[in-house]
Amino acid sequence: MRHDGRADDQLREVSFERDTFGQAAGKVLVRFGRTTVLCSASVSDDLPPWKKAAANPSGWVTAEYSMLPGSTDRRKPRDRKKVDGRTTEIQRLIGRSLRSVVDLQALGSWSITVDCDVLEADGGTRTASITGAFVALVEAVSTIEGADAAKVFTDSVAAISVGIVEGRPVLDLPYVEDSRAEVDFNVVMTGDGRYVEVQGTAEGAPFDRAGLDAQLALAEKGIGELAALQRTCLGDLWPK
Amino acid sequence: MRHDGRADDQLREVSFERDTFGQAAGKVLVRFGRTTVLCSASVSDDLPPWKKAAANPSGWVTAEYSMLPGSTDRRKPRDRKKVDGRTTEIQRLIGRSLRSVVDLQALGSWSITVDCDVLEADGGTRTASITGAFVALVEAVSTIEGADAAKVFTDSVAAISVGIVEGRPVLDLPYVEDSRAEVDFNVVMTGDGRYVEVQGTAEGAPFDRAGLDAQLALAEKGIGELAALQRTCLGDLWPK
Amino acid sequence: MRHDGRADDQLREVSFERDTFGQAAGKVLVRFGRTTVLCSASVSDDLPPWKKAAANPSGWVTAEYSMLPGSTDRRKPRDRKKVDGRTTEIQRLIGRSLRSVVDLQALGSWSITVDCDVLEADGGTRTASITGAFVALVEAVSTIEGADAAKVFTDSVAAISVGIVEGRPVLDLPYVEDSRAEVDFNVVMTGDGRYVEVQGTAEGAPFDRAGLDAQLALAEKGIGELAALQRTCLGDLWPK
Amino acid sequence: MRHDGRADDQLREVSFERDTFGQAAGKVLVRFGRTTVLCSASVSDDLPPWKKAAANPSGWVTAEYSMLPGSTDRRKPRDRKKVDGRTTEIQRLIGRSLRSVVDLQALGSWSITVDCDVLEADGGTRTASITGAFVALVEAVSTIEGADAAKVFTDSVAAISVGIVEGRPVLDLPYVEDSRAEVDFNVVMTGDGRYVEVQGTAEGAPFDRAGLDAQLALAEKGIGELAALQRTCLGDLWPK
Amino acid sequence: MRHDGRADDQLREVSFERDTFGQAAGKVLVRFGRTTVLCSASVSDDLPPWKKAAANPSGWVTAEYSMLPGSTDRRKPRDRKKVDGRTTEIQRLIGRSLRSVVDLQALGSWSITVDCDVLEADGGTRTASITGAFVALVEAVSTIEGADAAKVFTDSVAAISVGIVEGRPVLDLPYVEDSRAEVDFNVVMTGDGRYVEVQGTAEGAPFDRAGLDAQLALAEKGIGELAALQRTCLGDLWPK
Amino acid sequence: MRHDGRADDQLREVSFERDTFGQAAGKVLVRFGRTTVLCSASVSDDLPPWKKAAANPSGWVTAEYSMLPGSTDRRKPRDRKKVDGRTTEIQRLIGRSLRSVVDLQALGSWSITVDCDVLEADGGTRTASITGAFVALVEAVSTIEGADAAKVFTDSVAAISVGIVEGRPVLDLPYVEDSRAEVDFNVVMTGDGRYVEVQGTAEGAPFDRAGLDAQLALAEKGIGELAALQRTCLGDLWPK
Repeated sequence: MRHDGRADDQLREVSFERDTFGQAAGKVLVRFGRTTVLCSASVSDDLPPWKKAAANPSGWVTAEYSMLPGSTDRRKPRDRKKVDGRTTEIQRLIGRSLRSVVDLQALGSWSITVDCDVLEADGGTRTASITGAFVALVEAVSTIEGADAAKVFTDSVAAISVGIVEGRPVLDLPYVEDSRAEVDFNVVMTGDGRYVEVQGTAEGAPFDRAGLDAQLALAEKGIGELAALQRTCLGDLWPK
Repeated sequence: MRHDGRADDQLREVSFERDTFGQAAGKVLVRFGRTTVLCSASVSDDLPPWKKAAANPSGWVTAEYSMLPGSTDRRKPRDRKKVDGRTTEIQRLIGRSLRSVVDLQALGSWSITVDCDVLEADGGTRTASITGAFVALVEAVSTIEGADAAKVFTDSVAAISVGIVEGRPVLDLPYVEDSRAEVDFNVVMTGDGRYVEVQGTAEGAPFDRAGLDAQLALAEKGIGELAALQRTCLGDLWPK
Repeated sequence: MRHDGRADDQLREVSFERDTFGQAAGKVLVRFGRTTVLCSASVSDDLPPWKKAAANPSGWVTAEYSMLPGSTDRRKPRDRKKVDGRTTEIQRLIGRSLRSVVDLQALGSWSITVDCDVLEADGGTRTASITGAFVALVEAVSTIEGADAAKVFTDSVAAISVGIVEGRPVLDLPYVEDSRAEVDFNVVMTGDGRYVEVQGTAEGAPFDRAGLDAQLALAEKGIGELAALQRTCLGDLWPK
Repeated sequence: MRHDGRADDQLREVSFERDTFGQAAGKVLVRFGRTTVLCSASVSDDLPPWKKAAANPSGWVTAEYSMLPGSTDRRKPRDRKKVDGRTTEIQRLIGRSLRSVVDLQALGSWSITVDCDVLEADGGTRTASITGAFVALVEAVSTIEGADAAKVFTDSVAAISVGIVEGRPVLDLPYVEDSRAEVDFNVVMTGDGRYVEVQGTAEGAPFDRAGLDAQLALAEKGIGELAALQRTCLGDLWPK
Repeated sequence: MRHDGRADDQLREVSFERDTFGQAAGKVLVRFGRTTVLCSASVSDDLPPWKKAAANPSGWVTAEYSMLPGSTDRRKPRDRKKVDGRTTEIQRLIGRSLRSVVDLQALGSWSITVDCDVLEADGGTRTASITGAFVALVEAVSTIEGADAAKVFTDSVAAISVGIVEGRPVLDLPYVEDSRAEVDFNVVMTGDGRYVEVQGTAEGAPFDRAGLDAQLALAEKGIGELAALQRTCLGDLWPK
Repeated sequence: MRHDGRADDQLREVSFERDTFGQAAGKVLVRFGRTTVLCSASVSDDLPPWKKAAANPSGWVTAEYSMLPGSTDRRKPRDRKKVDGRTTEIQRLIGRSLRSVVDLQALGSWSITVDCDVLEADGGTRTASITGAFVALVEAVSTIEGADAAKVFTDSVAAISVGIVEGRPVLDLPYVEDSRAEVDFNVVMTGDGRYVEVQGTAEGAPFDRAGLDAQLALAEKGIGELAALQRTCLGDLWPK
C-alpha cells in the first residue's frame, strides 16, 4: 500500500472552487491533495506582436506559472531577475496543452493569459495547473460577449502524473513519492482520450516498454476521472 | 456617508486566518475588506553576507511583496526581469516596520523572510501586509527552539491608510476611494501608540496642518483596533 | 550646541549657482554645507508612451538621481545593472515633489527630465536635490517658447530634513548627525507653507506625537528660508 | 514516397567526424543529412557549488546548446541577454540524456560540459546533438587519467525524432517535414533499447494510442542504427 | 627563427572556403594557420530604427563576433547574459572596417549582418574575421537582385596583426607569440594600401617611433598578400 | 584658421584643479576648453578575485567612465541596465593607459579605481579623462602610507586627440571639428615620448601614410605640453 493509504491507481482527493480569490474573468482554486494552485484567466485585447502582424490574425492563449515562496517546505526564492528553466518548461507546457483544445480563430482577437500560482506544493503542480487552467479558461471565455464556447473549445483537456516507485507503476505522485521515483511521467489528454503531451523521463535507470505501457494505462484512467470532475465543476459552462 | 456605508473613522471588516496555504513556519491570510494578502514567514540560517561579516552578528528580518497577476481588475504583469519602484518601496517599508519592534540580538542568528503575496487587491495592500506580516512573524518565531518571543519583540506593530477624499479625512481607503483621494497617507504604529513610519503624499493639491492632524487622529484610532485583533488572533503566542 | 556650531533650528550654509557645468536648458549647482548636487533640467518632445496614449495629453516632468562614485568617503559603486531601492525611492520622490507645483496641461506637450547628480554627499542629498531641481526646472521652462511660467507653476517647492538626535529635534542634518539620528524625517513643502510629502521613519525607537510636532515646526521654518533663497537665485525668472 | 526519396522508416545519411574544429578534449562533427552540429566536451575541475557542497561529492556532466546565426535560412539572433525557452529545454534534455548513462561517482570529481553548436539546421538538431554529444563525451573521458570508461558509462545513448506527417508515421524528420508534422516526437534510448526520454507533442490534432505505438516502433529501429554508427566511430574508445 | 619556422615577415598558411556550413547568403570559412572563423553574411530588409528614421535612408552593414566554447584550450563560457568588453570592441571594429569600403547609399535599403564565429582560436581571430567577413559580404551582396557590387564596394578591406616579440617586429602572431608580445598591433587596410584602422597597445613597455614604423611596414606587406588571396577566392564576384 | 581661432597645432585652454568636489583620496577637475571631467581616484583593499587568486599578488588600477546626462546638448540617457560599447571601450583604454606607467608590484596590495565623470562634453572627453586620471592617481597614491610614488610610477602618461578636418591635420578637436573629421585619432604617450596607445579610425575615406605621420607629429607636440601642465599641477607630488 502507498504511504497515504491509496491504491496504486487512485487519485488524491481532487477539488475545484470557482468562487475564489482575485478579479480575473475566470478563476479556480484547484487541489490535488495538499497541492493547491490558484488559476486565473485574464482576457485582454492586447495580442502579442507576431499575432497582430499575422496574415490571418486570430486570438491567443498563453500561460504563466509560479510557485509562491511559502508554498514549499524550504522557502523558494522568487524569479525576479530571470525565469528558471523548470518554470519556463512548465508554463510552455500549460500553454500548449490549453491551445490543443482551443480553436484560436473561433476565439476572435482576444488574448487570454492563464496564471497558475502555486499556493502549496506537494507534487504534481504542473498537472494540477493544466487541469485547473482549463476550468479557468472556460469561465473566462464565457465572459466574452459574442464568443461561442461550443466553437472555441474542440474538447476538454486535463493532465496527471504517473511514475514508477520502487518498481511499481503508480498514479498521481505526491512529493514524497515523486522525489524517489525512478521514472517521472506527465501525460496530458483530451476528454475523449487522445494524447496531447507525453513526457517521460528516467530519473534513475532507463525503463522498458512494459513499464511505459503500464504508466500510460494509469494515466488514461486518472484523466478520465479528472475530466468528469471538470465537467461537474463547470456545470452549464461546459462547452460541449 | 461612504460608498460602502462605513463611517469616516470606521475600518473595513478585518480578519486573520492562521490555518492557511503553504508550508512556511508562520503564515496568515489577512483580509481588510476584499483586500486579501497571504503572509508567510520562513526561517533560515542563511544570513545576508553583510550580517555575517558584522563585528556583532545578530539575526535579520526582511520582507518581500508581490501582487498576483489575477489580484487586480486589469491583469498585473509579473516582476520577472526587474522589480518595479512601487514594489521596492513597499517591501522596504514592510521590512523596516517589522524590524522596529524586533530585537535582532535577542532573535539569535536566524534570518526570517516574510513574504506578502496579494491574492486580491482593493486598496490598502501595504498596510494589510504589514499588519498580517507581524502575525506571521510572531508565529514563525514561536517555532524557533530557544527563542524567547517576550525578548525578541519589543512591541507589536500594525499599519493603516488614511486620506482626504472630497475634502473629508477618512480611514482605511478601498480602491474606489484611494484612486480619487487628494492625499494618500500610510501610518505605521506600535501597539503602545508610537509612530514607526509616517508617509503622506499630496496626490492633488498640497495639504495644510489641520488636514495632517485630522488624518493622524484617524490612524491612531484604526491602529488601536487592529492591534486588538492581532492579539486575539495570536492568543497564547502574543509576545508581551 | 551642535558639532558644527549651529543652533538646532539653523540651516547649513546654502547656495545656488545657475552658471554651472553642462549644456542642459536649466541647471544649478546647489550646496547645503558640503553636500553638493548638480541639477540639470533637459527639455525634450519625447513624451513617455502612456502620456502620448492618454485621452487628454499633457506635458510630463520626471527626475533621476545618482551619486557619483567619488562623492562619498567610501567609493559608491555605480548603478550599472540595476537601480537600487534607495535611488528609486529618491528619484520618485523628487519627481512627485516637482509635479505637485506644475500644471502639466499648461506646460504643453514637453517632457522635462531633471537630473540630480550628487558631486559630494554629506547628508540631505535628497532634500538638496528637490530644492535645486525646482530652480533648474524653472530655468528650463523659461527657455520653452510659448510656455508661460506663471501658469505652469502653481507654487514653488523645497525640501529639508529634520530629525531627533540624542533626544533633541534638529534641522538639516549632515552625515555625522544623520547616521546616529533616532528619527529620519524628510519634509517637502510649497512656498505658501502646505505639505507635499511627509516621510518620517523611526531608525531606532518609535517616536511620540510631541516629537512629531517639534520636527514639523523645524521643517516649516527651514523651508521658509529655502524658498526665499530660491526666489533670490531665480530673480526675474521667479514664476509667481 | 518522402520528398527526399527515403522510406518512412529510413534515417537520413548520418556521419561522425572526430578530427574536427577546436581544442576541447572530446569533439565530434555530427551530421544527420544537412543538419550539422559541432559537439565539444570540455573537462574541468570546477564543479558546480551544489556539487561541491554535497555530502557525497561526485563528478558532473552538463550541456549547452546553441544555433549559430547563419545556421538557418532566416538569420537566428544570438541569445545574448537571456536564453530563450526552447534553448533551455533542449540543453536540459541533452544533459539529462547524457547523465542517464554515466555513473557520476565513477567519473570522479570532474566536471564535463558538452557544447552542442549547430552549424547548419535542417530539423532534428536536438537529436543529432544528443547522439553526437555522447561520442564527444566518451572521447573526453578517455583523456582523463585514471578514469575507467567501462565503469563511467553504464550504456550508450542516442536520440531520434519521429512524427506523423500527412497521417503517416515517419522517422528522422528534416525541416520541411517537421514544420508541417501533426505530431512532434523525440525519443532518447540507450544502446540496449530502454527509454531515457519520451517527449511527444500534438502540434495539430491530439493523437491516439495506435499512432503513439507506431512512432515508438520507428524510433526503436532508428536508434538501433545510430548506436551501431556511434560504436564504429568510437572504435577502441567504445566503453563497453 | 620563429617557433613555427616562419620568417618574421611571413603570414601563416591562409585559406578561404566559400562552400561551407550554414544557410546565409554569403559565407566563408577562413583559416589563418589553426585559427578558423566561420563568417556568415545574412541579408534582411529590417533596418535598425535610427536608419529607418533618417532623412536620407540607406542600407546598413553590421557585424557580430563570438568564440565557440570549444574553440580555446580552456573552455570559453558563452556571453549569455551580457556581452563582454573585448567582444564588443571586436565586433564594432569588424563593422567599421566593412563599412569603410561600402557605399551604403548604393547598397539600397538592405541590412546585412556578418556573423564571425570562431571555431578554433590560435591568435589573430579579429583580423581573420575582418578578412573573411569581407569575402562573405561580397558574396551576400552578389545575391541581392539589383545591387551593383562595383558601386556598392569602393575597395576591398583586410586586416592583420603585427607585434613586437622579444624586441623583434613580427607579422601575424599565433597565440604563443601574442601572449608574450610587448606590443599588440592590429592594422586594417584597403586593397589600395590606405589605412582604415590602426590600433596599437603597449602590453609591456611603451614603444618608440622606430618600432611603430617597423610594424606598419610588416602590416602593409601582409595585407597586400591577403588582398590577393581574397581576390582569388572571390573570382568573378570580385567587385572592382 | 580654425573656428575658435586656434592654430592647427594648438591645444585648447587646459586646466587642472585638485581642490574640487568629492571625498576620494585623489581628485582633479580637468578642462580641455569646455570639456570638463571630474576624475576621482579611490583606494581600497578590495582586490578583484583573479588578483587575489594570483600566485604573485600585486595591486590593481582600473577606471570607470561616464557622461552625466546634462553634459551634452541633447540629454544623454544613463547606462543603468547595461554599459554601452563606447563607454566600455573608453574605460578599458583609460585603465590600460594608467597601468602602462604603474608598477603594480610596487603599489602593494591596494586596488585603485579612477572614476572619470564628464560634467560637460565638447569633444576629447577620453583624452581629457586619461590626462586628468593620471593626476588623480598620483594624488591618491600619495595618501597611501608606505607607498613610494617614485617606485610606483615608471613615467607619467597623457593623451590627446588629433584628426584630419577638411584635409588638414589638427590637434585637440572640439565637438564641432570631431563630428566632421575624416579621421579620428587618439594617442596616449608617456612623459618621455613613447607610445602607449595609438588608435586611429577613418570615419570617412581611408587615410594614407603621410596623413598618419602628420597626425603623430601633432600628437607628440600636444602631449609634451600636457605633461608639463601635469607636472605643474602636481608640484611636489610629481613622482619622478
